[in-house]
Amino acid sequence: MKTLIVHAHPEPASLNGALKDLAVSTLEAAGHEVRVSDLYAMGWKAVVDAADYGADASTPLKVAADSGRAFDAGTLTPDVRAEQEKLLWADTVVFQFPLWWYSMPAILKGWVDRVFTYHFAYGVGEHSDTRYGERFGEGTLAGRRALLSVTTGGLEPHYADRGINGPIHDLLFPIQHGIFYYPGMEVLPPFVVYGADRMTGEDFPDVAKAWEQRLLTLESTEPIAFRPQNLGDYEIPSLRLKEGLEPAGRSGFGLHVRP
Amino acid sequence: MKTLIVHAHPEPASLNGALKDLAVSTLEAAGHEVRVSDLYAMGWKAVVDAADYGADASTPLKVAADSGRAFDAGTLTPDVRAEQEKLLWADTVVFQFPLWWYSMPAILKGWVDRVFTYHFAYGVGEHSDTRYGERFGEGTLAGRRALLSVTTGGLEPHYADRGINGPIHDLLFPIQHGIFYYPGMEVLPPFVVYGADRMTGEDFPDVAKAWEQRLLTLESTEPIAFRPQNLGDYEIPSLRLKEGLEPAGRSGFGLHVRP
Repeated sequence: MKTLIVHAHPEPASLNGALKDLAVSTLEAAGHEVRVSDLYAMGWKAVVDAADYGADASTPLKVAADSGRAFDAGTLTPDVRAEQEKLLWADTVVFQFPLWWYSMPAILKGWVDRVFTYHFAYGVGEHSDTRYGERFGEGTLAGRRALLSVTTGGLEPHYADRGINGPIHDLLFPIQHGIFYYPGMEVLPPFVVYGADRMTGEDFPDVAKAWEQRLLTLESTEPIAFRPQNLGDYEIPSLRLKEGLEPAGRSGFGLHVRP
Repeated sequence: MKTLIVHAHPEPASLNGALKDLAVSTLEAAGHEVRVSDLYAMGWKAVVDAADYGADASTPLKVAADSGRAFDAGTLTPDVRAEQEKLLWADTVVFQFPLWWYSMPAILKGWVDRVFTYHFAYGVGEHSDTRYGERFGEGTLAGRRALLSVTTGGLEPHYADRGINGPIHDLLFPIQHGIFYYPGMEVLPPFVVYGADRMTGEDFPDVAKAWEQRLLTLESTEPIAFRPQNLGDYEIPSLRLKEGLEPAGRSGFGLHVRP
């Protein structure tokens, strides 16, 4: 297994830092290859701007078109090209981050915004009467697995089906489905540590054990059964789920997971 | 009306730039006061790190606790304090941004991550057997309105109830409910321009007219009826919605909107 860990926390001596370190040591001890993109340590530039596309930046700037032209020409900035190469090298990508305001820290969102360029992660494949690009189950990153390892300040019941924050699987849907399934990755069920701010050193061994267990079973874990776009579940080009495919009582994001 | 516009697009001559400019001119012509935080033009620092808290940064860094201590001491960086002051000045805040990867651009997420500090936007109010802080309907920003003005590359049916991206109101729930309702803002229904990358100059007048109409009716627009945390709809401390309050057939994020 070749695993890329994308890590987004400013403090090495944090729970997130400890979970990242444990992932590296656990996977390496099991004989796997591991690479780490520690975004804070790398001083990752979080913000998309014209400098990302150099001479390929148009006036006015067109983020999608310009990023696609720079990708095609091989003229994206070295930091972005390096991340794209790591993604192509990996068969498994672990994202380690704290859930800040119900989403990724800005530095990680900026990694997505800059690395997932047009022609690399979107705008891939034929658009026709029967296909609307290669995405949601197909695409550049097909055949790879993604796994979110997330810590939250809030407690588990707050993220349950009736919890005030909304269900964790719905909060993560825009990330798991919209970002990682989109360019073709299979997304494994997330590893979530709740109530992180209240944890003490005494709680860590149980968390560590659960995390090691997930890491050592990555290859046999079933991914979330998101529906592929181009294999018959959706009308094209409206991309609406065909009538009758949903399980009784399911609505919203849940429609896009096969029963 | 005192409106703050928080704008997040790298290109002034873009659809987002035009919508921001139109908001300024429309509101000012109607006699309202307007301030703009143009994050790209300001060179906004997107990434939370120890430099945000100066001498209040602990070792190891604790983002929540350290940001709260710096907020209490008035020692947050001047850029963050200026944004907090603008939020307190405003009665209405418009967020203008393109939906990149189903969420905010990193620069805007970094505005939230850095400006919405502990004791300002969270960790506010009493935590007891009957209250779990002042949030979700109460808090520092109570009495203010928030409005998202968003452009998408994808087409409207892709964001409909059965659309492959998921319903737009669910995609925006982590932002509208989790970020802006959380510290007490009332959130108006969003203004969404779909298929932005395919728009031509000929399409703009219709969009502009619709946007002006929304801007000129901000004060009479009903907010989304998110459920307040502390007024009886939720069990405390589990913060689960009480049984029997949901309309038939509603689940997921929709549970947290009153019928």
